[in-house]
Amino acid sequence: MKNYISLSDIENLDLAIAEGLQLKNNNTVANVGKGKTLGMLFFNPSLRTRLSTEKAAKLLGMEVMVMNADKDGWALEFEDGAIMNSNKAEHIKEAAAVLSQYCDIIAVRAFPGLEDKAKDEEDLVMKSFKKYATVPVVNLESATGHPLQALTDAMTITELQKTKKPKVVLTWAPHPRALPQSVPNSFVEVMQRMDVEFVIANPPGYDLNPQVKKDTKVFHNQDEALKDADFVYVKNWSSYENYGKILSEDSSWTFSEQKVQLTNDAKVMHCLPVRRNVVIDDAVLDSPNSVVIQQAGNRTYAAQVVLKRLLENLEIE
Amino acid sequence: MKNYISLSDIENLDLAIAEGLQLKNNNTVANVGKGKTLGMLFFNPSLRTRLSTEKAAKLLGMEVMVMNADKDGWALEFEDGAIMNSNKAEHIKEAAAVLSQYCDIIAVRAFPGLEDKAKDEEDLVMKSFKKYATVPVVNLESATGHPLQALTDAMTITELQKTKKPKVVLTWAPHPRALPQSVPNSFVEVMQRMDVEFVIANPPGYDLNPQVKKDTKVFHNQDEALKDADFVYVKNWSSYENYGKILSEDSSWTFSEQKVQLTNDAKVMHCLPVRRNVVIDDAVLDSPNSVVIQQAGNRTYAAQVVLKRLLENLEIE
Amino acid sequence: MKNYISLSDIENLDLAIAEGLQLKNNNTVANVGKGKTLGMLFFNPSLRTRLSTEKAAKLLGMEVMVMNADKDGWALEFEDGAIMNSNKAEHIKEAAAVLSQYCDIIAVRAFPGLEDKAKDEEDLVMKSFKKYATVPVVNLESATGHPLQALTDAMTITELQKTKKPKVVLTWAPHPRALPQSVPNSFVEVMQRMDVEFVIANPPGYDLNPQVKKDTKVFHNQDEALKDADFVYVKNWSSYENYGKILSEDSSWTFSEQKVQLTNDAKVMHCLPVRRNVVIDDAVLDSPNSVVIQQAGNRTYAAQVVLKRLLENLEIE
Repeated sequence: MKNYISLSDIENLDLAIAEGLQLKNNNTVANVGKGKTLGMLFFNPSLRTRLSTEKAAKLLGMEVMVMNADKDGWALEFEDGAIMNSNKAEHIKEAAAVLSQYCDIIAVRAFPGLEDKAKDEEDLVMKSFKKYATVPVVNLESATGHPLQALTDAMTITELQKTKKPKVVLTWAPHPRALPQSVPNSFVEVMQRMDVEFVIANPPGYDLNPQVKKDTKVFHNQDEALKDADFVYVKNWSSYENYGKILSEDSSWTFSEQKVQLTNDAKVMHCLPVRRNVVIDDAVLDSPNSVVIQQAGNRTYAAQVVLKRLLENLEIE
Repeated sequence: MKNYISLSDIENLDLAIAEGLQLKNNNTVANVGKGKTLGMLFFNPSLRTRLSTEKAAKLLGMEVMVMNADKDGWALEFEDGAIMNSNKAEHIKEAAAVLSQYCDIIAVRAFPGLEDKAKDEEDLVMKSFKKYATVPVVNLESATGHPLQALTDAMTITELQKTKKPKVVLTWAPHPRALPQSVPNSFVEVMQRMDVEFVIANPPGYDLNPQVKKDTKVFHNQDEALKDADFVYVKNWSSYENYGKILSEDSSWTFSEQKVQLTNDAKVMHCLPVRRNVVIDDAVLDSPNSVVIQQAGNRTYAAQVVLKRLLENLEIE
Repeated sequence: MKNYISLSDIENLDLAIAEGLQLKNNNTVANVGKGKTLGMLFFNPSLRTRLSTEKAAKLLGMEVMVMNADKDGWALEFEDGAIMNSNKAEHIKEAAAVLSQYCDIIAVRAFPGLEDKAKDEEDLVMKSFKKYATVPVVNLESATGHPLQALTDAMTITELQKTKKPKVVLTWAPHPRALPQSVPNSFVEVMQRMDVEFVIANPPGYDLNPQVKKDTKVFHNQDEALKDADFVYVKNWSSYENYGKILSEDSSWTFSEQKVQLTNDAKVMHCLPVRRNVVIDDAVLDSPNSVVIQQAGNRTYAAQVVLKRLLENLEIE
C-alpha cells in the first residue's frame, strides 16, 4: 500500500480486517516503526482520530508529531499559480515537500466547506498532499471520505456478526448542524465490498452521491428499512442534492428504542461524537444493543493495519 | 490506589512522601510504564502541571498524549439526559469511555466557574470522568482540589523541616483576579494529616469551606498568625462565603520582607504562577527564604508517585 | 557549547557544518539524549522549526515537550520589578527556573514586535530565558536572529558549492507584511564567517543594521548584484532605518526567471515559508535552480548538531 486516501487503496479487504482483529489481541509495542516518524496535521478538531492514530503509531514503535495546522503553523495556499499577497503565507507545494523530509508518513484531516459541491469533490487538501508529498499520505477524514473509520466499521461488524450474511442498515438521523457526507460515503463503500445485505434509509432529498451509492437500495421509510436488521449504523449527513443544506430535522428519524424493536435485536453503531437524544436516544446508547464504544476502540487497530502496511511498503522500497 | 481525585485516595501519606523523595534521587527511566499511555486533557491553561506530569510519566516509561479539550477536540456535554441540540457535540459518557480505550490512565484539569457554588462543589467534570472512565483518573486541579500540588507541598515541607513539628501558616494574599479555592483546600487537607502546627490567616469573609477547614485555627490578623512560623504558604483565593467574589485587595496582606521578619526565618512557599509585588514581593521571592522553585521541581516526583501507584495497581488487576 | 542564542556560540563553524552533513547520512537514533528532555516554547507560529527540532531531538534519543506559550500556559511578564496586577500571571524568573527543572534544554521562539527598535534589539525574551534558566537555551528565532537557520544555510551552501569560493548574494524581495530582520541578520553573520564572496542587494532604506552588515558590500541595484552569483538567498525584511516599516512593494525585485539568467545558473535559497509569485516566481521555485526543499531538509541536521553539542557539554559538567 502506497497511500491510504480512500478505501480502494486496500486491495484485499478481508485480509486487512483479519489483520486488524489480530493486532487487537496483541497489545505489544512492535519494532516495524522504530526510528520512523508519523506527522499528523489537523485542519479540524479531532478526538478519536487524533488519539487512536497516535496510539496506533506508538504501538508500532513510531514517533509522532502532531500539529494543528493554521493555528500552530502557517495558513496554507492550495491554488496552483496563486499570487500569494493575502493572508496565506505558505503554499502546499513547499509544506508537503518539507513535511516529507521530517516525517516518514503524513496523516491529514481536512473537512469540506459544504458550500461548493464541485470544490469539495475535488478534495483539494488531501489530493494536494498526495500530489506534493514524497512519503505516504493517510486520510484522517477528508471532504469526501473517512476510510480509517470505514475499516474500523468493517472490523466491528466482522467481530460481532452472528450470521454469515448479516443485514446492515445505514440510516440518516437528524442533527442541528450541517455535517459532511464523508463517513456515510466510506461506510457505503466498505459495505459494498463485504458479504452483507446492505440498505440505506434516508428522507427524500438526502440520497448520497449516486457515484458512491451505486445500486445500493435506498428506503425513504426508515421503519421499512430497519426490518430484520442485524446492524444499524446511525449517522447524520447534510443533503448532497441540495448541497450542504439541512432539509429536515424530523425527530421521527431519531434512533429510539421503538426503532430497535423493528430490527433483529440489532447492534447499533455510530462513528462518534454522537448527540444524545437528537441522533440516538439515551435508552439505546445506554443499552446492550449499542456497540459504539467497542467500535471506537477498534479505531486504534484499523489505524495500526494501515500504518503497518505503509511502513512495510517503505521497507521494500 | 485506583484513582487520584482527592488527597484521601492516598492511605499512607508518610509512605507516599518518602517514595516521592526517593524517586527524586533516582533520575532514571523505569519500566513500570512501558507500553502504557497517559492521556492528559486540559480544559484550562497549565505550565507546571502539564510539563511535570508529562515528565513524570516519561520517567516511568509511559507514552503521553496531550489534548487541549474543547480546542483540539469537541465541546463536551456533562448533563445526564441532555437533548444535545446546541453547541456541545459529545457527551462525557462517550468521551470518557472512548479515552479509556486509548489510555491506561486519564488525567484531567478543569477549573471552577466561580459563579455557582453548588455547581462547583459537585466537581462535575472530574466526577464524571471518574464515573464514566474505565481506567484510573488523575486530578490535575479540579473545581475543589489540587491533590498533586498538595502531595508536592507535603514533600517539600518534609524535605526542608528542621524541627520535628514545624509551624506552618497558610496565608491569603491579594490578587487582581478571582481565583479558585482548589489549592488552599488541598493544602489544608494535607496539613491536617501531617505532624505540624498548622494555622490559617485570611481577612474576614475569606474563611475557607468549613468542611475543609474543620477545626484548623483561623487568624484574621496576618501578623499574629505568622509569629514563629517555620513555613509560610502564601496564596490568594476568592471568597467562599460570598462565593467567587473579590472582597479585598488590601496590599497590607502582600507578603513582604517585613512579614518574613515576624517568622522564625520561615521558608516561603507558593504553588506558582505568582504575581510578583502583588502576592509576594520581589525582595522575598529573590531571597533565600523562598523555596518556590524547589517546590515546583518536586511536582515531577509527586506525579511520579501517583502514576507509579496507579500503574502498579493496574498490574495487580 | 553552553547555549545557542546566536551564531557566535559556535566557535569552529567548519567543524559544525561538517558534523551536520555527517549526521545527515547517519539516520539512526543515538543514545546521547536518552533520558533527557527538550522543552520547546513557542510565542509565535512555526512549522519547519517546530518539526525539524523535534525530529532532531528524537533522533538523539531525547523526549520532547512542546508548548504554545501564552495559549497553553500563562502570559509571561519580562520586566524586572513589575507590579504584576494586570494580565500577566507569571514572571519569566519563575517560568525559566521552573522549566529548567523539567527540561534539560529549553528552546524558545519569540518574534520582534517591529514597533520599538530599542526594545526589539534588547531581545528581551531570549535574553531573559538565558539569564534565568539554569539549563542551556536554544534560539528558535528571536527578535534579532535565527541562528539555527543560519547553520542550515551554511550546510546547504557547503553541500552544493562547486567552486572553492562561490559568490553568494542575499537579496531583498517584496512582501505584503512587515517581517523581522532575524533571518537576514543571521545569514549575513554566517556568510561573513565563510570563505565566500558575499554581497547584499536591497532597495534604498532597507540596509540592515550596520553592526550586522559591517563592511559587506550593499547594492541598491539588484541586477548588478546578481551578476555571476552561484547562490542567491531571497528574503524579505522590513526596514531597519525606518524601523519595522514597509517602504516598497516594488515587484521588479520579485525573484524571477529573468533574474536567474543574470546569475551563474545560481542555486536559489529561501528559509520558507515563501509567498509564491510575490517573493519568488513559480517558474523559479519549480525549476532545478531552487534548493529550498533541500535547504529545509537540512534544518533537522543543523538542530541535531546544536542539541548534540549542548548534550555533550552537559555530560562533561
